[in-house]
Amino acid sequence: MRLYFDYAASTPVDPRVEKAMRPYFSEKPGNAGSLHYFGQEALAVVDRSRDSIAAAIGADFTEIIFTGSATEADNLALRGAFASFRRSKRNGNEKPRIIISSIEHEAVLETAKDLEKDGAEIVYIPVDKRGIVDPEKIESFLNERTILVSIMYVNNEVGAIEPLAEISRVIKNFSDKPYAGSFFPYPLFHTDAAQAFQFLDCDVKKLGVDLMTFSSHKIYGPKGIGALYIGKNVIAGRGISPIITGGGQEFGLRSGTENIPLIAGFARALDITVSLRKKESERLMGIKDYFWSRLKEIYPKARMNGPEGREGNSPAIINVYFPDWPAEELISRLDMEGIAASSGSACRTRTAEPSYVIEAMGYDSERARKSIRFSFGRPTTKKEIDLAIRRIRIILEDRRK
Amino acid sequence: MRLYFDYAASTPVDPRVEKAMRPYFSEKPGNAGSLHYFGQEALAVVDRSRDSIAAAIGADFTEIIFTGSATEADNLALRGAFASFRRSKRNGNEKPRIIISSIEHEAVLETAKDLEKDGAEIVYIPVDKRGIVDPEKIESFLNERTILVSIMYVNNEVGAIEPLAEISRVIKNFSDKPYAGSFFPYPLFHTDAAQAFQFLDCDVKKLGVDLMTFSSHKIYGPKGIGALYIGKNVIAGRGISPIITGGGQEFGLRSGTENIPLIAGFARALDITVSLRKKESERLMGIKDYFWSRLKEIYPKARMNGPEGREGNSPAIINVYFPDWPAEELISRLDMEGIAASSGSACRTRTAEPSYVIEAMGYDSERARKSIRFSFGRPTTKKEIDLAIRRIRIILEDRRK
Repeated sequence: MRLYFDYAASTPVDPRVEKAMRPYFSEKPGNAGSLHYFGQEALAVVDRSRDSIAAAIGADFTEIIFTGSATEADNLALRGAFASFRRSKRNGNEKPRIIISSIEHEAVLETAKDLEKDGAEIVYIPVDKRGIVDPEKIESFLNERTILVSIMYVNNEVGAIEPLAEISRVIKNFSDKPYAGSFFPYPLFHTDAAQAFQFLDCDVKKLGVDLMTFSSHKIYGPKGIGALYIGKNVIAGRGISPIITGGGQEFGLRSGTENIPLIAGFARALDITVSLRKKESERLMGIKDYFWSRLKEIYPKARMNGPEGREGNSPAIINVYFPDWPAEELISRLDMEGIAASSGSACRTRTAEPSYVIEAMGYDSERARKSIRFSFGRPTTKKEIDLAIRRIRIILEDRRK
Repeated sequence: MRLYFDYAASTPVDPRVEKAMRPYFSEKPGNAGSLHYFGQEALAVVDRSRDSIAAAIGADFTEIIFTGSATEADNLALRGAFASFRRSKRNGNEKPRIIISSIEHEAVLETAKDLEKDGAEIVYIPVDKRGIVDPEKIESFLNERTILVSIMYVNNEVGAIEPLAEISRVIKNFSDKPYAGSFFPYPLFHTDAAQAFQFLDCDVKKLGVDLMTFSSHKIYGPKGIGALYIGKNVIAGRGISPIITGGGQEFGLRSGTENIPLIAGFARALDITVSLRKKESERLMGIKDYFWSRLKEIYPKARMNGPEGREGNSPAIINVYFPDWPAEELISRLDMEGIAASSGSACRTRTAEPSYVIEAMGYDSERARKSIRFSFGRPTTKKEIDLAIRRIRIILEDRRK
């Protein structure tokens, strides 16, 4: 029996989600842009799904933009804000500043680096040993040239939860100062919630964010669809320009034929996730605690990366330092025993570099190279953990010989 | 019985395609970026599909970039070339020129317009009454600042086939001149083949294109996936920068988790399309001829927009001028009788503006406002045409009363 402990990389599609998608592949082929019956039918699906997603995060219908992935949504937030600000010419020739944490997902990190080539100034906010950003550090870097602050909600490698509401307060305080000299609607506050929605309330008003990224395939929905929440103020202030133009779909902010089956599936996945959220978070926290205590028994040298205890971290992600193994080697050994784990982000396409997240938390490259992420999901049971521990014990014993 | 005559807007997913996708939704959830078994399984699907698409167009494995839509592929071609050229600073402060036809799909047209705001110079090449571009006109506008020529293969509204091979020769002639002063690898030649692949050979070498856009949901594949062919020379010359950055998937040219089910489905759809292409093109040309002759019988005032006869146009698209009806009204009347047709592009999101394509062909706005596209597909039969003609006759008779 293969054990899949990589739900943070991708989740299987829930059968109810697959069912929700099915009619829109073959039977109902309409293009939501068409005026006729088939088009109207397709449009109704998009509208309903948009409504339900908006409701799930306390937003309005017009504030939800469907994208082709969470990566695209992150790109829309960063590139869209940069392009819009640049075009407004409100800032003369000064470099617009973008503030991000040093442990953002590559979709934010690499995009920020790319924008540097076009004249953006990027400020990287450090994190503490737990992987958590200090809002005061962000405060100290806010200036009148700052167009965007992007801090993820839950880190994908170590599970650290970032203090979004506090960061939002810091940004609002700055914007409210009469002498701030900032330009409406900047600075924008963006968060990538790809690893958060499954466990945390993502009410955009309570969190005080302007832009929020969602992923479907991390919540048992299909791959190939994501969404960006864009607050009304941002839209009114033309704070974001589209990065994909054409037929003008998604209120002119993301062109391309509306993906009816995937949109229907995504909405269904969100609904299911909200209904399971509380119970599943508690259950998974139990699974994670159990895994950690059993692992420590058989391998006392193991150390956890990220916040320990039940507060401040994802119930589904546990990142473990194995002092005796380079991550790549251990992942391959685990795989041979039928356990799928990962060295941080699957998105860093098949490289075995040391984790920049763990380095940013203040550990040396040795630890960053010898750490592994296990991430659990709805199908994970205590029985699977027991089985995993048994197999890991075999690997440990083989090693000792 | 509803008659769907809008296959150029979107096609239903072929059941064989759906079958090819199915295992990758729930059973095989891997992220192709992961090192373990599930990841390798996912990666194998991507590799196989990429191979089969490359083979279908005479390209190499590394020349195929999967995108989230044909619109995104067009954006990658235009924005990617513009950004790359700008960053290379090879051109000082001169405006890079982009040459497109005046009848391009919005994904090209609107993107070109958007790039104008960032300093691109756009040249619009007119078309003749049939909707066909004159390669000599393109020749006269090529200069040392030209970075891209984008001419669609088959027009989506009237079905006109553009002379790509001739245009390619013109561009190569220009590039080969020692005094052209152009910068390798520019000017690039891009074509949007979204409406072409179903009927025409799309061998990139024979056509001489550097960049080619493909759509899945126009060939009975799923929505949410497309591809851009990027020739080796372009890649070697760094002619294209990515527009979506992050984990570095798709050879660094398009980030985002690989969409395993959609990629598998797209590849299957392409295979099926190639195997049916010749026979289906002939069959549909017969359907189209039959529809046109029957329509002329009951409504002699009807005029065809686009190339008449069997040469130079798509076998699936017929665009008809109905002098007695604004398109919007007729579409709605047809819809009431159960016939789905469209006023040109479904992508122009539910507007009833006169067709810019028909205007560009030299007709007045009256004709551009009173023209309708019928597009046929694999399920279309002569029997459906007979039924449609009967219903259109009823509409005509109602009108006379």
